[in-house]
Amino acid sequence: MTYRAPIADLRFLLEHVVDFGKLRSTELFSEAGEDVTDAILTEAGKLCEEVIAPVNRPGDETPSTLENGQVRSAPGYAEAYRAIAEGGWVCVSAPADYGGMGLPVTLQTAINDMMSSACLSLQLNPLLTQGQIEALAAHASDEIKALYLPKLISGEWSGTMNLTEPAAGSDVGALTSKAEPNGDGTYAVTGQKIYITWGDADFVDNVCHLVLARLPDGKPGTKGISLFMVPRNLPDADGAPGVANSLKVVSLEHKLGIHGSPTCVMEFDGATGWLVGEEHGGMAAMFTMMNNARLGVGCQGIGIAEAATQKALAYALERKQGKVGGTGAIIEHADVRRMVTTMKAETFAVRAIALANAVAIDMGEATGEEDWKARAALLTPISKAHGTDIGHEMAQLGIQVHGGMGFIEETGAAQFARDVRVTQIYEGTNGIQAMDLVARKMMDGGAAAYALLDEVEAAAEAARETLPDLAQPIFNAAENFREATEWLVEQEMQDRFAGCVAYLRAFARVLGAHYHLLAAMAEGGSGPRTGLARFFIKRILPEHESLIAQVREGAEGLYDLSVEELQAV
Amino acid sequence: MTYRAPIADLRFLLEHVVDFGKLRSTELFSEAGEDVTDAILTEAGKLCEEVIAPVNRPGDETPSTLENGQVRSAPGYAEAYRAIAEGGWVCVSAPADYGGMGLPVTLQTAINDMMSSACLSLQLNPLLTQGQIEALAAHASDEIKALYLPKLISGEWSGTMNLTEPAAGSDVGALTSKAEPNGDGTYAVTGQKIYITWGDADFVDNVCHLVLARLPDGKPGTKGISLFMVPRNLPDADGAPGVANSLKVVSLEHKLGIHGSPTCVMEFDGATGWLVGEEHGGMAAMFTMMNNARLGVGCQGIGIAEAATQKALAYALERKQGKVGGTGAIIEHADVRRMVTTMKAETFAVRAIALANAVAIDMGEATGEEDWKARAALLTPISKAHGTDIGHEMAQLGIQVHGGMGFIEETGAAQFARDVRVTQIYEGTNGIQAMDLVARKMMDGGAAAYALLDEVEAAAEAARETLPDLAQPIFNAAENFREATEWLVEQEMQDRFAGCVAYLRAFARVLGAHYHLLAAMAEGGSGPRTGLARFFIKRILPEHESLIAQVREGAEGLYDLSVEELQAV
Repeated sequence: MTYRAPIADLRFLLEHVVDFGKLRSTELFSEAGEDVTDAILTEAGKLCEEVIAPVNRPGDETPSTLENGQVRSAPGYAEAYRAIAEGGWVCVSAPADYGGMGLPVTLQTAINDMMSSACLSLQLNPLLTQGQIEALAAHASDEIKALYLPKLISGEWSGTMNLTEPAAGSDVGALTSKAEPNGDGTYAVTGQKIYITWGDADFVDNVCHLVLARLPDGKPGTKGISLFMVPRNLPDADGAPGVANSLKVVSLEHKLGIHGSPTCVMEFDGATGWLVGEEHGGMAAMFTMMNNARLGVGCQGIGIAEAATQKALAYALERKQGKVGGTGAIIEHADVRRMVTTMKAETFAVRAIALANAVAIDMGEATGEEDWKARAALLTPISKAHGTDIGHEMAQLGIQVHGGMGFIEETGAAQFARDVRVTQIYEGTNGIQAMDLVARKMMDGGAAAYALLDEVEAAAEAARETLPDLAQPIFNAAENFREATEWLVEQEMQDRFAGCVAYLRAFARVLGAHYHLLAAMAEGGSGPRTGLARFFIKRILPEHESLIAQVREGAEGLYDLSVEELQAV
Repeated sequence: MTYRAPIADLRFLLEHVVDFGKLRSTELFSEAGEDVTDAILTEAGKLCEEVIAPVNRPGDETPSTLENGQVRSAPGYAEAYRAIAEGGWVCVSAPADYGGMGLPVTLQTAINDMMSSACLSLQLNPLLTQGQIEALAAHASDEIKALYLPKLISGEWSGTMNLTEPAAGSDVGALTSKAEPNGDGTYAVTGQKIYITWGDADFVDNVCHLVLARLPDGKPGTKGISLFMVPRNLPDADGAPGVANSLKVVSLEHKLGIHGSPTCVMEFDGATGWLVGEEHGGMAAMFTMMNNARLGVGCQGIGIAEAATQKALAYALERKQGKVGGTGAIIEHADVRRMVTTMKAETFAVRAIALANAVAIDMGEATGEEDWKARAALLTPISKAHGTDIGHEMAQLGIQVHGGMGFIEETGAAQFARDVRVTQIYEGTNGIQAMDLVARKMMDGGAAAYALLDEVEAAAEAARETLPDLAQPIFNAAENFREATEWLVEQEMQDRFAGCVAYLRAFARVLGAHYHLLAAMAEGGSGPRTGLARFFIKRILPEHESLIAQVREGAEGLYDLSVEELQAV
């Protein structure tokens, strides 16, 4: 069983569910027609199926290693990466001015989804480069842009993000890395960074580190942090990689998953760096990089959900066990059918959320309208947290569908679960995503959420005649959720945070049901997509109620047990 | 951070929640007084903390291997196993007639819980021996009992279960292994068995395989299967391990977890075996072995939930990140507090279910009353499936509490999740447990379930004055669940199976809330156990509603999508 790119599903979602078509009415994306979209999806899908997916198991079995301070990548990665780079697939949404295709982020999102299905460990490399391209395009000087962007976009060089330090993880503001001016416009960057994904790679000519560090006059906390470009090799006068910079990979982590992706401890020892953005403005620049990276990480979860679903379905169709009718395979058992259908329905729902998020980003970019930007900002933590939660949950369901075979590593089902697990943690843990949703993303008093719920309810109203049994539960759920939101925005932060994870998931339940309904309507209210929508709405949507019950508890009683009591009971 | 045996918690549960005291009023268990109980728990706990827990990480890092056809166990396992055997801890519930202590299964359950926390891979060895002791005690001839039981109880020999074959997993009746009479009362057993846990061990003098195979006149399906004792070494005239039998370990599986536990492919090539129980009565004998083994596997989940909780709490108390009050550690963050408190509350709830299950087994044994036996039979699939589901969910939450550190293998948090994952699959997948609950365990028309719900409601009634905010939601939930049960028992099997996993979990939610309430009442309605009960009842119990919504869908719409359509959408 090999991965098959879900081109038809992506095309259906783009055209009928997330209204990708409206991008074409903007000047910026007027060229992203159906034929271009089709060609992009088809070609990228083919690359994922034929070139990238085959290196996924080898990368797990033979992890990347560190030899003499240099990363030696897993078998086949170099060739697969070169195919990505040569095909122009590192970042199709990169600006045309620097050699990019200037395509919508939405298409990039679909490509990231497919590449993640094929090989999460390898895909992380271009994903980080995408984030760097975006950060540089938004914040770097023209010189830096001119020097770095074409190389990053072509995939000749790759990018990394250096935020975390041993004592500064979720609390980035606690970092201690320093940057001292060298007097020539450059800075000497010193410090240790951990969890640096693809901190080195043997298939690119240079590795470009974006490093957060504090200038001598930087205040404590996040407001005193600046961002620096610190390349592994210092570009020479021609822009070619020259002498080695004062930095090194100290060690690689031994991890639960993504064995093919080297997770590095990096040491910067007075390494030469160039300021990106304003002095002390590093966090703002980093957030640019992180915001779309969060959508990208959400797509990693979705890609794994897709791959796990394909694998589980194939097994369920092939494995005979017990007396059943139909195909004679275990897919005929009610509980197996439930699991596989759940995987299908969940993957569809969260993929729709992520693509709607991407469309909002593109519309914000194309129109400059604040409403679109607010929509994108609202959906980003949901795409990230829910995408990765569903990715992990579906990978675990996939293991269960395989029975005993699921626990055997050669099967590959377990690898999906191990690989995707980190996506719930990195790029801001899913708890932090949920805090972002109920705090920063509700600073508008809930306006962006209400605008989205208005659309959900309008669609339910419109479907009331055709599909009353689907429309009504969604309308009710949206109303419940709206009331919960009205309650939430009136609460203190501690009360919001106590139920934030449940709130985010409840939101995703309502949205998932909504996109399923749109799919059913596009199908005319009858057929397989309607069947899948019905499954989701009847069996999965009801979860929102118990989630809202948790939300409404707030922090009530949460601190009743003292720390000592928590240890004692 | 090392494991601390939860002696106080176990004692509290036994004395105040599951009414272990009533066992002492029976003749059979009159000697299991508080002092004996305390001594047993304390000594076993000490062994787990000091001797077993230290081999857990080494066993993961240096798995058991196969060398020249023999298993070489992980570092330290042999010494730890000998301490288990010499202390008499292999099976404290074994019959006194053959050298056992004849203690209640309830105490064995508490010990299994602690040993699973300490090292799941190693604990699997005595757990399988326990099942074999039980099967032999119930079904074997006096000669076999006299020869094998004392050696198994002392831990000199260990036991295995040989059911699964490549084409016969959940469908045991499909097995093809054969047994031909040798004419001297023995049989020649031939066939391949897979997933054989501890199929060989280098720290015992003999390995005793209980093998399911078909006699020449055995009908197809489960009714033609017989059970055989097939020892690795044939006992000589003195009962000592003699010449090697015609069987071998062909290979070990490369697994997601429990690396220390060798999972063997076994080849029996006309190996000498002795019939256990009746000809063609193998399934009945196997079910004896499996029933209590299912409770044992549930305890594996609970043990991992406990260990993961201890580790997560310790980390949350130690790790500083962000500005918070109190301890200054991440435990003060609302979402971390939520996760850790969830771990505490869930572990308590499912442990209570398993101990109540064990008490019912013991009361059935001591009194012979059918009601206790029905209670035990009803609770067994819940203990197994919910115990292992919670074990895995809590291990995953534990990873999340650790943030990035959780993904690094050295931390040990990921090992819990990898190890416990198989418990949801083996000994009958959790889907099969749920099918057992809604089919076989409801053949009484729901009588056993209603009897238990009567107790739940009576306790809620009794608590209505003291703790109205806890009693009322439980009463309502029990009523909802009773109505769902009344509906369920009227349905066709397919409709029951479609929602069986949700039904089992909903049942566990109601029972968990009930036992939390008993704990709160025992505390007088105020204090940390009451706080924990409130957390569970307000935030976790509400899940039962969405689960019941799933149950009530039955198979409606589940097969609407054809297999082709499932592949296409």
